Amino acid sequence: MIRIKKEKLSSLLLGILNARDINIKKGEYLVNNLVRSDLRGIRSHGINNFTYYLNLIENGTIDPDGEPVIINETATTALVDGQKGFGQYVCTFATKKAIEKAKKNVIGTITVRNSGHVGHVSDYTRMISDENMIGIIYVSCDKSVAPFGGCNLVLGTNPLSYALPAGKEKPIVVDFATSATAGSKLAHYLRKGDKIPEGWAISSDGEIVTDPRKLFANPTVPIKWGDNFTGSLLPAAGHKGYGLALFIDVITGALTGGRVNGEIIDGENFAFIQAINPDGFIQRDLYSERVDKLIRACKASKLQVGVKEILIPGEPENKHEEECLKLGIPIEEELWKEINSLINKK
Amino acid sequence: MIRIKKEKLSSLLLGILNARDINIKKGEYLVNNLVRSDLRGIRSHGINNFTYYLNLIENGTIDPDGEPVIINETATTALVDGQKGFGQYVCTFATKKAIEKAKKNVIGTITVRNSGHVGHVSDYTRMISDENMIGIIYVSCDKSVAPFGGCNLVLGTNPLSYALPAGKEKPIVVDFATSATAGSKLAHYLRKGDKIPEGWAISSDGEIVTDPRKLFANPTVPIKWGDNFTGSLLPAAGHKGYGLALFIDVITGALTGGRVNGEIIDGENFAFIQAINPDGFIQRDLYSERVDKLIRACKASKLQVGVKEILIPGEPENKHEEECLKLGIPIEEELWKEINSLINKK
Repeated sequence: MIRIKKEKLSSLLLGILNARDINIKKGEYLVNNLVRSDLRGIRSHGINNFTYYLNLIENGTIDPDGEPVIINETATTALVDGQKGFGQYVCTFATKKAIEKAKKNVIGTITVRNSGHVGHVSDYTRMISDENMIGIIYVSCDKSVAPFGGCNLVLGTNPLSYALPAGKEKPIVVDFATSATAGSKLAHYLRKGDKIPEGWAISSDGEIVTDPRKLFANPTVPIKWGDNFTGSLLPAAGHKGYGLALFIDVITGALTGGRVNGEIIDGENFAFIQAINPDGFIQRDLYSERVDKLIRACKASKLQVGVKEILIPGEPENKHEEECLKLGIPIEEELWKEINSLINKK
Repeated sequence: MIRIKKEKLSSLLLGILNARDINIKKGEYLVNNLVRSDLRGIRSHGINNFTYYLNLIENGTIDPDGEPVIINETATTALVDGQKGFGQYVCTFATKKAIEKAKKNVIGTITVRNSGHVGHVSDYTRMISDENMIGIIYVSCDKSVAPFGGCNLVLGTNPLSYALPAGKEKPIVVDFATSATAGSKLAHYLRKGDKIPEGWAISSDGEIVTDPRKLFANPTVPIKWGDNFTGSLLPAAGHKGYGLALFIDVITGALTGGRVNGEIIDGENFAFIQAINPDGFIQRDLYSERVDKLIRACKASKLQVGVKEILIPGEPENKHEEECLKLGIPIEEELWKEINSLINKK
């Protein structure tokens, strides 16, 4: 593992896009989202996905020049068609719209269709909490999750994020997939030869498995997530994650007239973004004190056996970011070489 | 187990309220919510809680005459103070407001504070889906859940519900607590002498337990939920349920300037209710077809070993309701006697 400064990483990635004549004014949104992901320790959505995005551009799923278009608009809502643009560019556009509307009319709600892969989702809700408003995002994506009780792929991992500004404390930033685990973790367990916990995934035979080899057609050829995966991920907490995933599918996909379920293609995302201005409901100081007290009550809780500290969602990411801004972002040497080599390829 | 017709049950409960000079015009909302809960098989929130509500009235937590007041209002939002009224009356008022606003301006969002216990939460979202709109409710309540990694009571079970209208299919109705289980289930396992699954609850010593006796001060005296409970419930799916519970606490409690966390009293609820009109985003037929296809894709999934049928959230409740409308609602004889005896007590 080596450490690379954020700026160096960003300019390398931008250089690679530039060398391929990819729109870097818009591509910068992709690069920033990936680097920020590693900066905050959300490695599943970091620069190790950079080649994945290059492939999506190459196969036409993402149009780097795609400019989002507003299909429908009211004072508090809008439907945005992303025109296959970079998801990071499209969703930043939509998030800014939500913020603008919430500033004027308490709540702004934007739905997004035909967007490229948006990356880690708390990037958008944090833009909203930076404006001292509550940020909500739901995203649906291509299918990799079985319905509760089933073993066919029907739902996406359908992640969500909430960012909740506080008073003196830092915002609470929730960010998780509604599936029991991320697909990339399965490949990781497979490579390490470890068993996976029961409840993460199911084989195509309908059996809940702990041996990850039963989830891949050819488990000896490792393997990035998605390569010859024949199983299904399971919803988090059974019927609860299933209910959340269905809700997210409807509020993003159905509410945008998006591609029908099961036909969403890899790398395509749909989103629902909401900014809520607490000032429209209640005096700010009452709101802020209340959130601060919640955070402090959690932090002050007696610890479970074996636990060192109660963490607030977003807190580990803040610590990671602070450390990496000083020391650089940790990257596997192999990945660093791989990315460097891209500058010469077209 | 005997079966009692819905009408008979309702009129008995109303008679008991009337005999105690409790406002039955408002009390009817409580009665209907409780009976509908049993009708739909949500027994944890059914008429077995009737005496609990009588106690809340007696100790002053609920004011049966409490009439909700609008504190703040815009074209799309409002903050409602429930004035300690019946939660079912207050939240029906708020839900109707949300619907009214969504009909005019796409989305209506109402927050509620100082409300009595609202009962089962899908009652409100189903009012919204009955109007062909997407219904969302989040509710916070008194503390019984530890933060992730902790073992003090900080959070409520903070339930949520989503009701998603379809086209030809019936609406999807999601309704669950963000804790791993409901408290009433622990008492049930204790009475039966069964072990509880790991991950449901933690003792005051900070140990995750499977023996429910370790969760009660005097486990030999059974025991309704809450009686001498010394443990904590755990969040569903660890950090995911924890994140949801924090979000719900903020969006209901902080956004209403409600009682600070940890000081919410038993039987007091805070709520966030949102109605979203799909017509404001997209043509209705596109929306409806999309939801129908999602439902059918889930239903058509290959089954897990041991599973007979994929169920859509809300589907088991619909079946239960249909059966009970014909045959009557199943009730333990003991409970039926207990409730009947209340008519003579004051």
